[in-house]
Amino acid sequence: MTNGLPAKLKPAARVTGQRQDVWSIINEAAAASPQQPIVNMGQGFFGYNPPDFIINAAKAALDKVDCNQYSPTKGRPRLKKAIADAYSPFWGRQLNPDTEVTITTGANEGMLSAFMAFIEPGDEVILFEPFFDQYISNIEMPGGKIVYVPLHPPKDGPTTTSSAANWAIDFDELEKAITPKTKMIVLNTPHNPVGKVFSKEELQKIGDLCVKHEIIILSDEVYDRLYYIERLTITVGSAGKNFYATGWRVGWLMGPAHLIQYVSAAHTRICYSSVSPLQEACAVGFEQANGEGFWDQTVKDMRGKIARFTAVFDELGLPYSDPEGGYFVMVNMQKVQVPADYPFPPHVASRPRDFKLAWFMIQEIGVAAIPPTEFYTDANAWIAEDYMRFAVCKEDDVLEAAKERLRGLKKYIK
Amino acid sequence: MTNGLPAKLKPAARVTGQRQDVWSIINEAAAASPQQPIVNMGQGFFGYNPPDFIINAAKAALDKVDCNQYSPTKGRPRLKKAIADAYSPFWGRQLNPDTEVTITTGANEGMLSAFMAFIEPGDEVILFEPFFDQYISNIEMPGGKIVYVPLHPPKDGPTTTSSAANWAIDFDELEKAITPKTKMIVLNTPHNPVGKVFSKEELQKIGDLCVKHEIIILSDEVYDRLYYIERLTITVGSAGKNFYATGWRVGWLMGPAHLIQYVSAAHTRICYSSVSPLQEACAVGFEQANGEGFWDQTVKDMRGKIARFTAVFDELGLPYSDPEGGYFVMVNMQKVQVPADYPFPPHVASRPRDFKLAWFMIQEIGVAAIPPTEFYTDANAWIAEDYMRFAVCKEDDVLEAAKERLRGLKKYIK
Ligand SMILES: Cc1ncc(COP(=O)(O)O)c(C=O)c1O
Ligand SMILES: Cc1ncc(COP(=O)(O)O)c(C=O)c1O
Repeated sequence: MTNGLPAKLKPAARVTGQRQDVWSIINEAAAASPQQPIVNMGQGFFGYNPPDFIINAAKAALDKVDCNQYSPTKGRPRLKKAIADAYSPFWGRQLNPDTEVTITTGANEGMLSAFMAFIEPGDEVILFEPFFDQYISNIEMPGGKIVYVPLHPPKDGPTTTSSAANWAIDFDELEKAITPKTKMIVLNTPHNPVGKVFSKEELQKIGDLCVKHEIIILSDEVYDRLYYIERLTITVGSAGKNFYATGWRVGWLMGPAHLIQYVSAAHTRICYSSVSPLQEACAVGFEQANGEGFWDQTVKDMRGKIARFTAVFDELGLPYSDPEGGYFVMVNMQKVQVPADYPFPPHVASRPRDFKLAWFMIQEIGVAAIPPTEFYTDANAWIAEDYMRFAVCKEDDVLEAAKERLRGLKKYIK
Repeated sequence: MTNGLPAKLKPAARVTGQRQDVWSIINEAAAASPQQPIVNMGQGFFGYNPPDFIINAAKAALDKVDCNQYSPTKGRPRLKKAIADAYSPFWGRQLNPDTEVTITTGANEGMLSAFMAFIEPGDEVILFEPFFDQYISNIEMPGGKIVYVPLHPPKDGPTTTSSAANWAIDFDELEKAITPKTKMIVLNTPHNPVGKVFSKEELQKIGDLCVKHEIIILSDEVYDRLYYIERLTITVGSAGKNFYATGWRVGWLMGPAHLIQYVSAAHTRICYSSVSPLQEACAVGFEQANGEGFWDQTVKDMRGKIARFTAVFDELGLPYSDPEGGYFVMVNMQKVQVPADYPFPPHVASRPRDFKLAWFMIQEIGVAAIPPTEFYTDANAWIAEDYMRFAVCKEDDVLEAAKERLRGLKKYIK
């Protein structure tokens, strides 16, 4: 029996038996906290709207009959072209919108499509820890086996603020993780939650290993744009991140036709096609972003938010990793002392210290953040148990409210 | 090597090796035909927009910050409530929006989520032939095995127009298809492409078999609303079909909490969450549809389109199945004689007669329709090789243009 279901009706292993995930733990804790309303710095959704030129494009698309009906399974031609044009300068050649770009239901389903396209049961996929949690189920669904390689935080993390660039790959560890069954490696740059942008040398070394062993690189660049060994690389993008619209569920994958064609085939079988009117709006987004100065503004705004928010940790003397990209800040809270007799519910008490810190902050300080050991295997969770992830993609007044509350941590810092 | 890929990079079996699908054959044929523009009665997308009250709701949602960000993985509360309220009268009790409704990326990904939730490798799923083609890959992805049971067209199909109700289930065949490994059965009512609405007695008999053998019923009712044995039934709906917006990719599954919870878990792993602003618009659609007289209008409009369009087949003496629901008409073309020496390209010549008829009509008449043997296994394809599927969800002037062209068939009818 599973939850009282007769044996004959039992659900598949792939959807059962997981412990409660971090998102529901944090959301439930926030809802039950005496500090209402909680300032939510947890999940990475935006506290503000996409710019008007994109919202208006979405509204205009809603008036067109063909924009409300099925788009082609590979995506609307206008969006594929706009993406090809926007990224071609980074590739140094014109991308072919028909064969080298395919549109998906967010980056998430795009990555699932890539795994479905290439992973057979028993194939191995290398992931760096910490990892974006959805990768795990997306690799396991087609029967893939995950091999983990940790990113090592700077040794002086508990005492000193430094660039997220200092989270390091041990290339011996990486090479040892490669076996004849290694089919893919996932890169995520800028990295969630670390905020690291992989350096040119790091990418070159990873690329060399992938060429040597014929490993497909799935490059999750939802927070930015980059590229490596073309023949082996599938690059993932997300309109949700680019245009402040995580709820639109428009993503894309780019890469050589000999890889992309199978990703498109998998996507067709998973979602058939992706949301049509918002694809059209994203096409306009790409077409007009430069003219509107949107990309430059985005970077400037986000740098401003990071500086505004992290000021409170400088005040408190809590060191953090200064992100090179993306919108997450990892703060080291080793110095925060939770009272020894503080009561935790069993599902929090059984998890590493960062879960307890997160619970404590929600109950006593009224700020929600994400404990990053959720993004580690049990064996490596100790690496991150003093860190806490904050999403800064929020309105400035929300950031100020969070700072004001975080000052309440002072009395727990020794 | 697959398409010139080195062995190490080869794609997974699940995305390779299929013959060309009907949609690309028909679209390519239409693009290459001398009869331009082709009147496209093929794919089931709408030739007109959702009603203004729903479009306006979508535009209003685009102005709200939270409507542009991730919705909860199970769907926006407002939409779940609107769906629960709209369907509760059919259940005879109030559905619980939090546990008995989950929102998906179209009905398609909803069905994939249901299969992912319950099918382990080797489990069997019963499908009636003809079948909606996406079911196949969606069942095979989690490793399911499909067992086919044909719907039998009326014996006098080649000569006589009659109700689609006359496509019959052989219940002995159905019972024989059940094995200890049968985990699910898929019902589709109103049926695509047949247009049959399963009768109360048919549903009762199917339900009895499912209770006896503990089989989960996946009831694909994207074209209408119904219900059976509650404990065992997951019901699928589609805003694309209900609100004339196939490109919106909003669907839902309803059923008992002990089944729906696993469907939600699978959906989270596949798409994370579904398109947010259009969920909000669909909520308004459900809330206001009765007041706007929309459901009644929908049925009336579609009946009118079916009557308008089928008139040409009455004129031509071509019998058809008069649909009880949905928007597809199956026309029997046994009487249409394609010239003996008519040239077909190899990928059409190798398929059953309906593919040749479809090709011929596109080239000579300028009307595209769908050959239904695509929705059969090879063994049973002969059953439908004289039929052709027309989608009537098009503007009246398109229907009239199609009729005018179809009159050109006269000289080929003996
Ligand atoms: C690293 C990473 N990849 C992919 C995604 C998913 O993007 P999308 O919302 O487009 O599915 C996220 C979202 O948080 C992410 O952080
Ligand atoms: C029988 C049937 N089920 C499901 C679907 C898919 O619906 P959606 O567009 O909501 O994914 C269709 C669409 O044609 C269909 O005909």
